[in-house]
Amino acid sequence: MFRSFMPQALIQARAAAARGEVPVGAVVSRGATILAEAGNRTRELSDPTAHAEILAIRAACARLGSERLIGCALWVTLEPCAMCAQAIAHARLARLHFGALDPKSGGVLHGARVFEHTQTHHRPEVYDGLEGDACAELLREFFAERRG
Amino acid sequence: MFRSFMPQALIQARAAAARGEVPVGAVVSRGATILAEAGNRTRELSDPTAHAEILAIRAACARLGSERLIGCALWVTLEPCAMCAQAIAHARLARLHFGALDPKSGGVLHGARVFEHTQTHHRPEVYDGLEGDACAELLREFFAERRG
Repeated sequence: MFRSFMPQALIQARAAAARGEVPVGAVVSRGATILAEAGNRTRELSDPTAHAEILAIRAACARLGSERLIGCALWVTLEPCAMCAQAIAHARLARLHFGALDPKSGGVLHGARVFEHTQTHHRPEVYDGLEGDACAELLREFFAERRG
Repeated sequence: MFRSFMPQALIQARAAAARGEVPVGAVVSRGATILAEAGNRTRELSDPTAHAEILAIRAACARLGSERLIGCALWVTLEPCAMCAQAIAHARLARLHFGALDPKSGGVLHGARVFEHTQTHHRPEVYDGLEGDACAELLREFFAERRG
């Protein structure tokens, strides 16, 4: 039976919001197991690369002692940017599931469209829109409060 | 007087080769000062994101306690991939100087051409070909030895 890990990614996104970070969360899974999960921590860590996807990929690789996450899936609440998309390719993740589309900053279905170039060297299966409304609503609330 | 930090980036690339890593090196500078320097460590760290550029950016940001490297420059021996190009944009680096072109895996002048999309949000000044022959020769030697 197919199991979605988007609910867990959403928990990580909500935790990021509670820390004052842009609410994006990510999970790396292998079969029915979560290898790693993370929320965005760019402010806390003063690290522009500390997106949820990068932190989850790094943690999963550390856990496996491997640069590659063959056969694994990444679940993330927002369309990855070009940085995270290429990191997904470097890690050879088999599948990418994401929630909300990001026409403004996305690099998968928008902008750089990283997986559409031979220079990327790997193209995961991509599934978009999973719990997209819940994922997008978290971001809307976060930015509305900051503007308020 | 303009000072090039590519010689220091090349030292980092050679050190990476000596560790058995793909020989790419990077330096982040502010004016005449080196803020951080790094070589590729993807194997040693089992981290597909541990490219020289990412490690140098993270170290420079940690040193400044900031997510952004306003007014700083990145020097790297090889054309950055899409991951590193978007990280350069996230860090708001003012200038990117790189050595060898990378038609096979590059994301600046090839493939995703990350800085050409509005979704990237920042476009550094880009200077390519600085000590390009020396930078490319290091890579050629490294891969020739591995094939030999």
